[in-house]
Amino acid sequence: MVSDSVRHAARLITQIENGVPAARAVLAELLPHCGSAQLVGITGPPGAGKSTLTASLIKELRSQGRSVGVIAVDPSSPFSMGALLGDRDRMLEAASGDPGVFIRSLASRGVPGGLAAAVNDVVDVMDAMGKDVVIVETVGVGQGELEIAKIAHTVVLVFVPGYGDALQAMKAGITEIADVVAVNKGDLAEASRAVQELRGQDYVRHDPTADRTWVVPVQKVSALRNEGIAELVGLIDDHYRFTAQSAWRSEIERNRRHAQFMAFVTERLRAELASIDLDAFDAGWLRDPYAAAEEFVTEIVKARADRGAVGLAAK
Amino acid sequence: MVSDSVRHAARLITQIENGVPAARAVLAELLPHCGSAQLVGITGPPGAGKSTLTASLIKELRSQGRSVGVIAVDPSSPFSMGALLGDRDRMLEAASGDPGVFIRSLASRGVPGGLAAAVNDVVDVMDAMGKDVVIVETVGVGQGELEIAKIAHTVVLVFVPGYGDALQAMKAGITEIADVVAVNKGDLAEASRAVQELRGQDYVRHDPTADRTWVVPVQKVSALRNEGIAELVGLIDDHYRFTAQSAWRSEIERNRRHAQFMAFVTERLRAELASIDLDAFDAGWLRDPYAAAEEFVTEIVKARADRGAVGLAAK
Repeated sequence: MVSDSVRHAARLITQIENGVPAARAVLAELLPHCGSAQLVGITGPPGAGKSTLTASLIKELRSQGRSVGVIAVDPSSPFSMGALLGDRDRMLEAASGDPGVFIRSLASRGVPGGLAAAVNDVVDVMDAMGKDVVIVETVGVGQGELEIAKIAHTVVLVFVPGYGDALQAMKAGITEIADVVAVNKGDLAEASRAVQELRGQDYVRHDPTADRTWVVPVQKVSALRNEGIAELVGLIDDHYRFTAQSAWRSEIERNRRHAQFMAFVTERLRAELASIDLDAFDAGWLRDPYAAAEEFVTEIVKARADRGAVGLAAK
Repeated sequence: MVSDSVRHAARLITQIENGVPAARAVLAELLPHCGSAQLVGITGPPGAGKSTLTASLIKELRSQGRSVGVIAVDPSSPFSMGALLGDRDRMLEAASGDPGVFIRSLASRGVPGGLAAAVNDVVDVMDAMGKDVVIVETVGVGQGELEIAKIAHTVVLVFVPGYGDALQAMKAGITEIADVVAVNKGDLAEASRAVQELRGQDYVRHDPTADRTWVVPVQKVSALRNEGIAELVGLIDDHYRFTAQSAWRSEIERNRRHAQFMAFVTERLRAELASIDLDAFDAGWLRDPYAAAEEFVTEIVKARADRGAVGLAAK
C-alpha cells in the first residue's frame, strides 16, 4: 500500500468498522509495512478543546514536513453525538485538501471486536500508508478510554482549568494515563495557576521494561491562538525518543498485537457462545447463571488439557 | 434477606463491584427471591436532568407507598466524573433518612465482568430486598448504555429541547431504546413544540414474543417544578402492565440471566487467556494476531466437540 492509495485505505477502514472478516487478511499483509509511525493519543474531558488542539497539532506537524493520520473516535451513544462533536468540523476543515493529512472518524457502535481493537487496526492502516504521525483523538468518556490510551506511544491529556473542579478530577487522570499534559486556554489566569500546581506535583511514568522514569511535562497552550503548540510537539517528540532508549517502545507494539489477538478471540468466542442452546447445555442456567458459566468454562479448559494444548491448563 | 438488612445488602453490592467471587454464591441464593421488582431504566444525554427526574420519581412513588431502589451508574472515565455528576447530590439529599429508599451508585471502572453484569447483580439484590421499583439511572454516554437499557422492563428516555440539535439526535435514541419519552424542562416553549413533533412520529416498540406493538408515549415534565411526574409514573406502569400480557416480560428476565451467564463466561475466559504464554502457543502471533486468534478458537471448538460437548460444534 502506497501513500496515494487513499481510496483503498478508506475502503479497508470501512470494512474494519463493519467487522468484515476479509479485512483481517489484508491487515495481516500490511503488518510487515508497519512500525514506523509515531502514535500520539489525545484525550481529556468533554469541552477541553481536544479537536481544536488536534487541528493545531496537524498544522504544526505539516509545517515541519511530517505527514499525519488522524483517527477521531466517536462516542457510542445514539444521542450524545451532536452535543460532543461540534468542534470536529473545524478540524476537518483545517486539513481539507492537504494530501499529507488523512482523517477518519471511527464510531464505536457496531464494531464487533470492540473499539480498541478497531482503533489498533486503523492505526496499522495509516502506519502502512506511510504517515509519520498518527493521532488518536478520543472524547474522554467511557470504558474504552484507558484501553485506547495504552496503544499510543505518547498520551497527551488536555484539560481546561476552571471547568468544574477540573483540576482535582484531572489529577487522577494524569496519574493513570498521561505522558504529557496540555493545559488549554492558556490565556485564562487559572491556566497559569493550574500549570504551576501540576508542575509542583512531579508526576512520573515508570518505564515498564527498565529502571527509569519519565517526568510528565506540563505545557500551557492556546489551541485557538496557536500558542505553545510547537513546544507541545517538542515534548511529544522528547517522550517518543525516551521510549526508544529501552524495550519500552517494543513493549507498546507487543501490547497492541496482544490486544488485537485478545479482541478477536473474545469476539469469536462470543459468536460461538451465542449459538449455543443454553437449555440443552444446562437447564439450570436460569436458576443460577454463574454456576452454569463456571461449569461451561471448566469444560473448555478440561477439553483443551485433554488434547495436550498449550495454556488454559485445568487447575 | 429482609428489607431491613441494608448493611448486608450494601456489603454484598461492594463485593459485586469488586468482583469478589463469593458474591456470586450469595446471588445464587437470592435468585429464588427475585422477580417481583419493577425495573425502570432512566437514560438520556448529559444535562437532560436525569438525576433531578429520578428524585421526583422517588418522591411520587413513595407518596404511593411503593418502596424504591436506585442504582446510579457512574461513567468510567477518571476525569469526567466531576463534570457529569453534579445533580446526584440533590437526588441523594431528597431521599436521605427514608428507609423505603435504597440508593447506590455503581462505578464501572474495575468491575471485572463489565458494567451491565454488575448492574444486573445489584438489581437482583434490591429485588430480593423487596423493593417494589428499582430505578437504574445511567449517564447516557458510552458503550454499555444500550446493554443497560435492555435489562429494564421500561426504559425512560429523558431529554431537554433546545440543547444543541437535541431533537434530531434524540430521534435515533427513541427508535432504539425508549419505551417512554420524557421531555424535561416543560416550562420552556421549545418543550411543547418538541412534544408535538415527537407525538406526530408514532414511535412504536414491537413485542418480541407476540404480534403486538406499544406506542411510545411522550410526556412533558418539569422535574424541578414537579409537574407531569404522576403522569409519567402512570405511563411507566401502563408499559409494565403491557409487557405482562405476553411472554415479553419473562423474555426480559431470560435476557438478564443470559447476560449474567455470558458476562461471567467472558470474564473467566479472559482470565484464562491472560495466563497463556502466547509465544509458547504460536510464535507467529506478533506477525499475524488474527490468524493466531482464529487458530486458538478453532482449537477450543474442536476440543469440546471431541468430548461430545453440547454446542460450540466444529463447523
